[in-house]
Amino acid sequence: MDNQLILYAVPLSGVIALLYALFKAGWVSKQDSGTEEMATIAGHIADGAVAFLKREYKVLTIFVISVAILLGFANSGRVDSSPIISVSFIVGAICSALAGFFGMKVATKANVRTTHAAREGLSKALNVAFSGGLVMGLSVVGLGIVGLSTLFIVYNNQFSEINQVINLISGFSLGASSIALFARVGGGIYTKAADVGADLAGKVYEGIPEDDPRNPATIADNVGDNVGDVAGMGADLFESYVGSIIGTMVLGAAFVPVFDAMGISTIAAVILPLVIAAAGIIVSIVGSFFVKVKEGGNPQTGLNTGEFGASLIMAVLSYFIITNILPSSWVAGGFTYTSLNVFFAVLTGLAAGVLIGLITEYYCSTHNKPVVGIAYQSVTGAATNIIAGLGTGMMSTGLPIIVLSVAIIASHYFAGLYGIAIAALGMLSVTGIQLAVDAYGPISDNAGGIAEMSGLPPEVRERTDKLDAVGNTTAAIGKGFAIGSAALTALALFAAFRQQAGVESIDISQPVIMAGLLLGAMLPFVFSALAMGAVGRAARDMITEVGRQFNEIAGLREGTTPAEFAHCVDISTKAAIREMILPGTLGVLVPVVVGFVSKDMLGGLLAGVTSSGVLLAIFQSNAGGAWDNAKKRIEGGIEFDGTTYGKGTEAHKAAVVGDTVGDPFKDTSGPSLNILMKLIAVVALVIAPLI
Amino acid sequence: MDNQLILYAVPLSGVIALLYALFKAGWVSKQDSGTEEMATIAGHIADGAVAFLKREYKVLTIFVISVAILLGFANSGRVDSSPIISVSFIVGAICSALAGFFGMKVATKANVRTTHAAREGLSKALNVAFSGGLVMGLSVVGLGIVGLSTLFIVYNNQFSEINQVINLISGFSLGASSIALFARVGGGIYTKAADVGADLAGKVYEGIPEDDPRNPATIADNVGDNVGDVAGMGADLFESYVGSIIGTMVLGAAFVPVFDAMGISTIAAVILPLVIAAAGIIVSIVGSFFVKVKEGGNPQTGLNTGEFGASLIMAVLSYFIITNILPSSWVAGGFTYTSLNVFFAVLTGLAAGVLIGLITEYYCSTHNKPVVGIAYQSVTGAATNIIAGLGTGMMSTGLPIIVLSVAIIASHYFAGLYGIAIAALGMLSVTGIQLAVDAYGPISDNAGGIAEMSGLPPEVRERTDKLDAVGNTTAAIGKGFAIGSAALTALALFAAFRQQAGVESIDISQPVIMAGLLLGAMLPFVFSALAMGAVGRAARDMITEVGRQFNEIAGLREGTTPAEFAHCVDISTKAAIREMILPGTLGVLVPVVVGFVSKDMLGGLLAGVTSSGVLLAIFQSNAGGAWDNAKKRIEGGIEFDGTTYGKGTEAHKAAVVGDTVGDPFKDTSGPSLNILMKLIAVVALVIAPLI
Repeated sequence: MDNQLILYAVPLSGVIALLYALFKAGWVSKQDSGTEEMATIAGHIADGAVAFLKREYKVLTIFVISVAILLGFANSGRVDSSPIISVSFIVGAICSALAGFFGMKVATKANVRTTHAAREGLSKALNVAFSGGLVMGLSVVGLGIVGLSTLFIVYNNQFSEINQVINLISGFSLGASSIALFARVGGGIYTKAADVGADLAGKVYEGIPEDDPRNPATIADNVGDNVGDVAGMGADLFESYVGSIIGTMVLGAAFVPVFDAMGISTIAAVILPLVIAAAGIIVSIVGSFFVKVKEGGNPQTGLNTGEFGASLIMAVLSYFIITNILPSSWVAGGFTYTSLNVFFAVLTGLAAGVLIGLITEYYCSTHNKPVVGIAYQSVTGAATNIIAGLGTGMMSTGLPIIVLSVAIIASHYFAGLYGIAIAALGMLSVTGIQLAVDAYGPISDNAGGIAEMSGLPPEVRERTDKLDAVGNTTAAIGKGFAIGSAALTALALFAAFRQQAGVESIDISQPVIMAGLLLGAMLPFVFSALAMGAVGRAARDMITEVGRQFNEIAGLREGTTPAEFAHCVDISTKAAIREMILPGTLGVLVPVVVGFVSKDMLGGLLAGVTSSGVLLAIFQSNAGGAWDNAKKRIEGGIEFDGTTYGKGTEAHKAAVVGDTVGDPFKDTSGPSLNILMKLIAVVALVIAPLI
Repeated sequence: MDNQLILYAVPLSGVIALLYALFKAGWVSKQDSGTEEMATIAGHIADGAVAFLKREYKVLTIFVISVAILLGFANSGRVDSSPIISVSFIVGAICSALAGFFGMKVATKANVRTTHAAREGLSKALNVAFSGGLVMGLSVVGLGIVGLSTLFIVYNNQFSEINQVINLISGFSLGASSIALFARVGGGIYTKAADVGADLAGKVYEGIPEDDPRNPATIADNVGDNVGDVAGMGADLFESYVGSIIGTMVLGAAFVPVFDAMGISTIAAVILPLVIAAAGIIVSIVGSFFVKVKEGGNPQTGLNTGEFGASLIMAVLSYFIITNILPSSWVAGGFTYTSLNVFFAVLTGLAAGVLIGLITEYYCSTHNKPVVGIAYQSVTGAATNIIAGLGTGMMSTGLPIIVLSVAIIASHYFAGLYGIAIAALGMLSVTGIQLAVDAYGPISDNAGGIAEMSGLPPEVRERTDKLDAVGNTTAAIGKGFAIGSAALTALALFAAFRQQAGVESIDISQPVIMAGLLLGAMLPFVFSALAMGAVGRAARDMITEVGRQFNEIAGLREGTTPAEFAHCVDISTKAAIREMILPGTLGVLVPVVVGFVSKDMLGGLLAGVTSSGVLLAIFQSNAGGAWDNAKKRIEGGIEFDGTTYGKGTEAHKAAVVGDTVGDPFKDTSGPSLNILMKLIAVVALVIAPLI
């Protein structure tokens, strides 16, 4: 088929995704939202979430406009770029923000409708929750692909030089990354401040029930699930998705002269990632039809069929796409590429992602040795629980890094740097359904919260808990994909930076590069510290406020007067907005400053951020996951030295400490690092022509 | 002066150090060891410590012999090396082991004599404790310099090729590093298993007093201070000291042909580090005379005068040494070196070390914001205490890494790679007195324990506590030197490896090197996990044993029957020996395996281990220090929201959790990483000619 024609079909697939998302959103809205009380609570959650996003976006607008102006000035009068890069940047930022907003809007409708559906049965509830998640997933991939491919088509018609087109397109990625970092950090701080604050208030002030509808922080906690786990994660995956596509496009541009000499479509390797992504969208929609459960059945089966089915179809499909779009073999830079080997690179990425996911699950699952070990170490108190959790998290970095290293070498063996980039894309091609499964989690979680707050019978909560509990394997695989693809994308962008900055070699034994490496390796530590400190401070404000309400509001303790939820929502909102500024700005500024000092040092910085970022991300997210499940394991009862320890025992209290420590690890600082390392690489790429 | 003559004076300074150490050891032995009960307790501690070291050395003998045989075979029939490298290796291992043994032997005599002296007054007690520490310090530098310089003189007379001499000498460093890693890890596991086990036994079994003479684990706890904080630290500093000297010698060898062409002493740059170290020994002895305190005075003043005085004298002295030994200027590899600039590189190292030390103190001192912050976060429970401590530890990596990066670039600017190496030596030149101050801490700590166990009046404990409390600043500076010099030495060895392996450039954007970087960055995480896991498991055994004794031994609870201390000592010993094998072997094996796969990958591995190792070491040791002092801060009483929290409150309990988590961080895994990164670099250097 004609590559030009195929290219024009790409945005079409994005439009299909968006139309289907709209249709699904309409269907969700039409579902019954249950009793008046349920609707009221859900209304509070939805209002809080929208209010936060509005304030967040207001701040981000200032940021985006400032950066756009700077970008425009810096790139004016250059032949290899153009001030139009600002347009890409703004479009990228807007697409990311829109995807987050739209997805969250529907999620805050789906939650209460899932609760209501759960009053009838499991099957319907799964359908509503998953549909809500699917809207998020399809919004992300739809807006990503429409924005990116439209810009590419326009620029490609406008500018004759492919390198210039690529430079301009990278602005889109920068926009997406910036929004993602702020959204992840802000959302993460919001959700954990509310969560930790609500949990701990009971510890400080006597007689305040933890995890109880009377606790004024519960609404903020539920809002947090939406702004952190839905909107934040959406922006995160939007960034990964776009980053891996653009990373591959940049490296594919190196083949243009070769293909030109061969007399075939020059941009074949550049548009290949777009076409794979477009096909992935259609496959995701098809996969979503498999997500069903019979009454009394296990929802896990439906999710697995949908996601693994989609991945399998995609693997097969990508063979045909690659061999059709690329020539069967070509030589560039003394290296012989074949389309078959490019396909193998994609498979390598997929295999690595699945493996890292399975390892993640091993370390975090309730049934395996690491989590059981942490549970047993809780018997001797919080200190041993923490030591065991930290140890488990650190140990869990071993195998994923070995898998990643092998994947890097193998995909490079198959298809050079292009192979590394497209391996990352391989993991993310079915982001549509992957994200649907991810977002389905917090929707079910919210549904459970609403069931409890509105006093529905316990079997409703049981059903939503069942929904929430499944999808662990799929979520773990999703995590594996997120970490694996982040590392590979960062490497691809790193290679792209070197290509664009004209740096011959980044010799790590040179002192200035070694200094850059150390500085880069330090950033994820400081970044994590900022995020954790922010959660600590915000949680503290929350605790004080909860205490104030219990002391001042007569009847709150007895449950006769409602708590002032809005104050708590306000505290989380303000804290999140205030605290996201510094780490977010740091992520953008540091590479710029270092880059203008020395581009060699920037090369070292990128290597340092990537290596230490991947490790800290795996460490933090696995330690957090393991602590969480160790607590759950003890709630199921464990036996040690003849005594059984369950909920309410000292061992359980110790495990709760671990879980609370793990919260900011796995939901605030950990996931932000995946974005940080890509953002820094994208910033480097964008400023490469300027330094 | 004739350089050859100066060279022969070097071992003499080592002999002086050893003779003075012998004299001081004799003086300590002659002091009164107090009551019979005190002597008995001290006897148990000394026996336990010696028993552990004997078993440890037995295992290490097998290791050393095996490695020596392998080294001998691998280097036989080579012109650039010789099987004689095995001799260097064995001598290095023996010197390190002897220094540890001798220092610990005297420390276990000094502890009880310090207790007895403290019955009379502070001044005498300081004198005894510091003399004990000085024996350790002088044994380390004395054996280090005697062994190293003797081997160098012999080899230099025997072999005409300087590169061969250098290769052979590096075996000494390998021997020292191997012993250091095992001793640090083994000692660290021993001391923390006993410490954590003794503390937590009270939590698990009701009615068992924590930190009480009746607790059967207390003797093991005191033994631990000696095998971990004295012998382990001695081996650690022996390794740093020797490593930084050899690193500079290796890089100095590059100047031999240049100096030859200039018609001056060819080995001037090679022997310079030996001469600086020799001068440092004499200066350390002189400095030790300033360590005195008047009755009622502050011991801090004496320690400060001694250590800072020695550093200052050394800084001035090194100017004369450097300008006398090196030509005033020379050109090598297109770079113009001057002796003055080499001196500036030394000053850069010293300044960086002091700065990192001051930053360390800022983050860990009871009076500053970070520790006070952790103390306040303890009010809301253990979880917030842990989050705050982890955050503080991560944040504390920022400034030291910036200082280190500047130091790397500056010392390289002054004198190239040789400048980086000699900057590290600058920090370590007065290791003699530095280590005396460091070892004085655990001796005072032990003295306090003995005072308590033998029921001496409280003012004795107060005096030993006063001794123990001072020296914080000097200890912090010591930490700064340890971390800074480790990083610089690792870099110097890294450069030396590249030189010897003939690797042109280690381009981090190459996939195989990037894979090595990731694998290297992962090692410190897995290594820390192993160390922490070992402490957890051993502590658990200890807790069970303490519980058993309290249940089975009639009269123990009442204090009428003595506990079976020996069982606890045995548990710690066995656990430490068993658990040190895997991490220790890992440190030696991984670089060998990776090196034979690809020397490029080994280059990446070294960069990864260094960057992630420095960061995790700073993070862990500062988090541990901050937690420790946050607990002490609360013991002094803090006010929050109108309530005062002190010893015994919930806030204090939360702070104890943090302190316990920090124990293995700051005393087991953290300090081991400094050794790990140098060991891996030395292994790479030694196998460089073979791959």
